[in-house]
Amino acid sequence: MQAEIIAVGTEILLGQIVDTNSAFIARELAEAGIEVYYHSLVGDNATRLTAVVEQARSRSDLVIISGGLGPTKDDLTKQTVAHLLGVKLVEDALAMAKIRRRFAINGREMTPNNRLQALYPAGSQPLANRTGLAVGAFYQDPDGADIMLLPGPPSETEPMFREQALPLLKQTYPRSEYLSSRVLRFFGIGESQLVTQLSDLIDQQTNPTIAPYAKVNEVTLRLTAQAPDEMQGQRLLDDLTATIKARVGDYLYGYGDDNSLAAVVVQTLIDRQLTITAAESLTAGQFQSTLGSVPGVSAVFPGGFVTYAASAKHDLLGVSQATIDQDGVVSAATAKEMASRSRERLDTDFSLSFTGVAGPDALEGQPAGTVWLGLAQRGQQPQAKLLHLTGTRSAIRERSVLTGLDWLRRTLQKVK
Amino acid sequence: MQAEIIAVGTEILLGQIVDTNSAFIARELAEAGIEVYYHSLVGDNATRLTAVVEQARSRSDLVIISGGLGPTKDDLTKQTVAHLLGVKLVEDALAMAKIRRRFAINGREMTPNNRLQALYPAGSQPLANRTGLAVGAFYQDPDGADIMLLPGPPSETEPMFREQALPLLKQTYPRSEYLSSRVLRFFGIGESQLVTQLSDLIDQQTNPTIAPYAKVNEVTLRLTAQAPDEMQGQRLLDDLTATIKARVGDYLYGYGDDNSLAAVVVQTLIDRQLTITAAESLTAGQFQSTLGSVPGVSAVFPGGFVTYAASAKHDLLGVSQATIDQDGVVSAATAKEMASRSRERLDTDFSLSFTGVAGPDALEGQPAGTVWLGLAQRGQQPQAKLLHLTGTRSAIRERSVLTGLDWLRRTLQKVK
Repeated sequence: MQAEIIAVGTEILLGQIVDTNSAFIARELAEAGIEVYYHSLVGDNATRLTAVVEQARSRSDLVIISGGLGPTKDDLTKQTVAHLLGVKLVEDALAMAKIRRRFAINGREMTPNNRLQALYPAGSQPLANRTGLAVGAFYQDPDGADIMLLPGPPSETEPMFREQALPLLKQTYPRSEYLSSRVLRFFGIGESQLVTQLSDLIDQQTNPTIAPYAKVNEVTLRLTAQAPDEMQGQRLLDDLTATIKARVGDYLYGYGDDNSLAAVVVQTLIDRQLTITAAESLTAGQFQSTLGSVPGVSAVFPGGFVTYAASAKHDLLGVSQATIDQDGVVSAATAKEMASRSRERLDTDFSLSFTGVAGPDALEGQPAGTVWLGLAQRGQQPQAKLLHLTGTRSAIRERSVLTGLDWLRRTLQKVK
Repeated sequence: MQAEIIAVGTEILLGQIVDTNSAFIARELAEAGIEVYYHSLVGDNATRLTAVVEQARSRSDLVIISGGLGPTKDDLTKQTVAHLLGVKLVEDALAMAKIRRRFAINGREMTPNNRLQALYPAGSQPLANRTGLAVGAFYQDPDGADIMLLPGPPSETEPMFREQALPLLKQTYPRSEYLSSRVLRFFGIGESQLVTQLSDLIDQQTNPTIAPYAKVNEVTLRLTAQAPDEMQGQRLLDDLTATIKARVGDYLYGYGDDNSLAAVVVQTLIDRQLTITAAESLTAGQFQSTLGSVPGVSAVFPGGFVTYAASAKHDLLGVSQATIDQDGVVSAATAKEMASRSRERLDTDFSLSFTGVAGPDALEGQPAGTVWLGLAQRGQQPQAKLLHLTGTRSAIRERSVLTGLDWLRRTLQKVK
């Protein structure tokens, strides 16, 4: 079973938009055990689109095409594919009703070209578009490769694929084995170091497979097991996870596709009913904003301080002028005072502070990337930690925030 | 002159990484006046890569391939292309010296496979890799399509393309006309509304061309003019810019690829020597963090407040308990007091405040997306503005921050 992915659109061809649909579809197909050998990308041009689709059908069993289902004169994917298959376009009554309703709600007259969005090649199964107007289609051809048509905007492609297309594909191309997968998330270890520590496991991988993926500032491992049923698959994943944790568990902060250091830290604070504040200089609110991205954080985070200038560190927090004069703002002493004073002001269990040089220029004779973090904890002496970071201003600030979150995560592990 | 772009890599094919190189290269080629009709993507597989490259050469004049130049056993782009061209791989002495130096600095022994990174197909011009180790190549074939090889990581592809490849391409495929382009950036107007207001200009475009591009929360127009020299090109761009400004200038906030509302606002504050602070509830520091992303902001931004809980609005800012009790935290009165009190605390010229419902849950009976912004200005009565936003928690916070920046930008325009 081999599939091929085609993206259609002149804006993508010219690079004005990056095509994320093809990668999304490829990932989803891999999860479903369908192999992909080629992606292609072509503009809104009937001749070239026909050539690309015909070639794809000559070497694959299934061709998935995204883009060009809209109402404008540029959109011609449906017409081109119908012509190539030798079938007509027919109307999907539900989709047509939705289009009429949308125009009625907006009080606008429906221009005739909008009807195009409700059409699909005769003989296909139409795919409803929950988040848009253009209907998709799945055409099964007994004499050649099957074709699936999906809309171009990722906000429409992704729900249609997950909710409509994938169940249909799994049913049409059934697998004898069950696939289970698990994502492990690491912070504080680079991809090459992680891969080196697990090199024997990765080299010998058969079932489960291990796919490392380096993102900015974190690395994930996706483990995928094949088994006759889910329980046996989970057992294979549990065994491999235990082996990996024994080697690099210190850097493992969580599981799952939709997870983050901030989500893990906030959930731990909520579970233990511990509160947090912060005093930020170089990060200028980015740590607190990251906390604020997690729903439910209001239970543990009353607010905090952005003390960008030295005067604000003194005026808002009461960091002593003597400390600033003697040690400078980029110092362990200032970081500790910022953390202690902000914690006291809001009477929280923890406070983190960030002071350093985001760059591009040096500060107090210290180069860009010199960052002090401070951590205050109720009933304990404040601590400070020095980082030497590299990269752009934005990379230095981002890395500071994540290192602070990871420090807090490790500290919370030790709290009874 | 027609080019075709091929990305190579199994990680991209499986969707574990999104290919951004092809879009980048397409944009750069468009600027250079080189047309692109197809992109393809193939895994690290010699047979399939050969087939894709041969097809590309049969229909294009130039084939640009990124990926697969590294030292691992998966990397086989160079070997495959050399075999296809019937030439050997030869060593680039400068690249080899750089590889040896890198290993010496890191105190590691150079394994033989690393030499692969210094090889290129005989008869090509090697392209130096400033940010990495793998050398690129440009092979001009008198009997067929030319081939360019680029590394896969965007941090290497992009500088190599801009600094080495593009000048070579412009020299190899010279144009008779000079291309000038200008990017106009808009906030507060949707793409469809902008395109409608300029529809006659867009429909009749010949020279300059007009390319609209909708990003999240902003729209840009790229104007590109062809002329015998730069001065005439700029004059064409000036004329079209004036026409566009007459219609939608109210939404035009700036120019250029690397620009943002925050950069425009911070630069205006610096130019006029005006200072700013903020008090943030639902945005939790994101507005201040956005200011902090602009180098030089320390001259105008001493710091500010994150007042997430009602108690923090009272304790840190002195928002009156009566206001909170009577009007609620999501109210014009609270927004105004937050802005006024924070401005007074830090004695700045301006302060912006943000209070509202980020969601997913409602607050004080108000639905997610209800947001009040407050603006305090020295010597003036504070103002408040109500927003009704839609989308995810993160979309609501982002839109609040940008609307605040735009409000400040418009206010600064009126300050003498």
